[in-house]
Amino acid sequence: MRAELPPGLTPAFTALVDGVLAGPGPRQRRAMAKAITLLESTRAEHRAQADAMLTELLPRTGTSFRLGISGVPGVGKSTFIEALGLSLIDQGHRVAVLAIDPSSSVSGGSILGDKTRMERLSMDERAYIRPSPSSGTLGGVAEKTREAMLVCEAAGYDVVIVETVGVGQSETAVAGMTDMYCLLQLPNAGDDLQAIKKGVMELADLVVINKADLDDAAATRAQSQITSSLRLYGMHRRTPHEVAAANWQPRVMRLSALKGQGLAEFWSAVSEFRTLQTHNGALDHKRRQQARAWMWERIQAGLQQQFLSAPAVRQVMDETLAQVLDGRLAASTAARQLLARFSGDNADA
Amino acid sequence: MRAELPPGLTPAFTALVDGVLAGPGPRQRRAMAKAITLLESTRAEHRAQADAMLTELLPRTGTSFRLGISGVPGVGKSTFIEALGLSLIDQGHRVAVLAIDPSSSVSGGSILGDKTRMERLSMDERAYIRPSPSSGTLGGVAEKTREAMLVCEAAGYDVVIVETVGVGQSETAVAGMTDMYCLLQLPNAGDDLQAIKKGVMELADLVVINKADLDDAAATRAQSQITSSLRLYGMHRRTPHEVAAANWQPRVMRLSALKGQGLAEFWSAVSEFRTLQTHNGALDHKRRQQARAWMWERIQAGLQQQFLSAPAVRQVMDETLAQVLDGRLAASTAARQLLARFSGDNADA
Repeated sequence: MRAELPPGLTPAFTALVDGVLAGPGPRQRRAMAKAITLLESTRAEHRAQADAMLTELLPRTGTSFRLGISGVPGVGKSTFIEALGLSLIDQGHRVAVLAIDPSSSVSGGSILGDKTRMERLSMDERAYIRPSPSSGTLGGVAEKTREAMLVCEAAGYDVVIVETVGVGQSETAVAGMTDMYCLLQLPNAGDDLQAIKKGVMELADLVVINKADLDDAAATRAQSQITSSLRLYGMHRRTPHEVAAANWQPRVMRLSALKGQGLAEFWSAVSEFRTLQTHNGALDHKRRQQARAWMWERIQAGLQQQFLSAPAVRQVMDETLAQVLDGRLAASTAARQLLARFSGDNADA
Repeated sequence: MRAELPPGLTPAFTALVDGVLAGPGPRQRRAMAKAITLLESTRAEHRAQADAMLTELLPRTGTSFRLGISGVPGVGKSTFIEALGLSLIDQGHRVAVLAIDPSSSVSGGSILGDKTRMERLSMDERAYIRPSPSSGTLGGVAEKTREAMLVCEAAGYDVVIVETVGVGQSETAVAGMTDMYCLLQLPNAGDDLQAIKKGVMELADLVVINKADLDDAAATRAQSQITSSLRLYGMHRRTPHEVAAANWQPRVMRLSALKGQGLAEFWSAVSEFRTLQTHNGALDHKRRQQARAWMWERIQAGLQQQFLSAPAVRQVMDETLAQVLDGRLAASTAARQLLARFSGDNADA
């Protein structure tokens, strides 16, 4: 296998891979941090090493459970993930927490950037917490998180939690790289429903009404409202994955992460989902679909980048778009003209 | 302007453009049919002529109202469009009816292919009816319909109706090229709601419960059910267009196209929508957004085609995808490898 590595890989590279695959301990933690930093580098030679590393690690991945969690700021995501994580490591699991936060390049890191977050979990060596990559498009940020997930899995973390705040299409990105997607909600369902972006509720396998201890009546009302809205959305589920997953009816649970109430029931529902979807093949099917979709998403993004940076395209892009917007040039004619310039430009290069 | 035409354009080309721009009459009808056939041709020299023709016609387009209509088979689309069209031409309008039916390449034309459809409307010279282009992907079929719409507009048809059956993403394509999108429904709303694909209801500016004369109680029930579900969907409307269009609350109307009941109310709602959206700028905004989105959609499709037909990509595509699906290669690594082959291949060409 090592024979297939690109030329120029040093003993340091081998040490890095071996470090990630080493058992739990300081050496592994250092190697993981280094490996993820390598993945996040934009330098071409780092990228080549990172790809070689991923290919080496890949056979050791895929046996973890990947849990996606999102919710608006204030819903209590950190408290929930810390309480869940602490309870899982107590049961013998190793838990990694990653994040996708496309806003962090602007804000300097709005999730997981704060070191006081998840203080107890982050200090436990059975947990590994990594903030969101902080630059680039959502696609780029999601790519690095997806790859970091593979590093964590190869290192033996058997539960990987990927969290996001509702920014851009980050919920879709998280649902597209995890086995199960959970949406955290506040008890005031009426207002809160409005805060959910179009299509996000349909992604949820499980909805958790957190802070249920604050107002039990409101939480129960929210539970019933969200349950009926999920049933309505459920009727429109029509993609092959959704049909395959139809054995699972999305659930709504009440919980208080702060008081530790409902966490056991939550994990029991997650385990039930995992067992069911493993046995009916839906999990494997979903992961293959995700890998295929992800490859195409990255190809599309790459093609667009090649297109937009081609000199022959850049030269006329602004003027062409202006003509299209003003109704002087048909959109399809413009597309054909630009595509001809792109392929001509490439041929001349 | 003629100076910008590609070389090789004949007097026949000029006659074609002039024919489309001529007033109503047999000459115009023949020119329109010829122009649309030219648009549908896949030969490269025809495509160049078609693009030149579109650029010539474009200044004469944009003043029509573009109405999208869809509904499942059996909902009564033909009867509805014929009744509406006849009533509109009686009021002095000129009405064009186009279609997007990506299934027609398989079935040999499931909508508008039947010559007995809309018999009265199709025989009236104030109407122009054209079946769906019958080959290619949805994107390709939609492109040709979109271009045919421009020919009809340049020819002075001031109402253009684009219809589709719910196949693939054709509803989205129709909503993406029209000013107002109407969804036809049957009175049995409970069952019918289930037949609507995810996301389609959210596109509707107006929902028409047709065949309301068959069961008035059911139609009224359907009206109230769909109204509340639209309200729920409405809460999730969040894109800029949707916010801009928020002055319009989607409506649900009962109607019987067969008995001619409710058609006047329907057109009155359409006119109200048009006046409102013209004055608040939403219509212009929507058309610019549609043009931009359409250009990018076609560029993406063209890039994908160039990518998939590049020899260096084709050579390894199957094996690479197999490795990704089997978990032997990370999806992002595969994408980068394929993209490198693509740009290398283009550079060598």
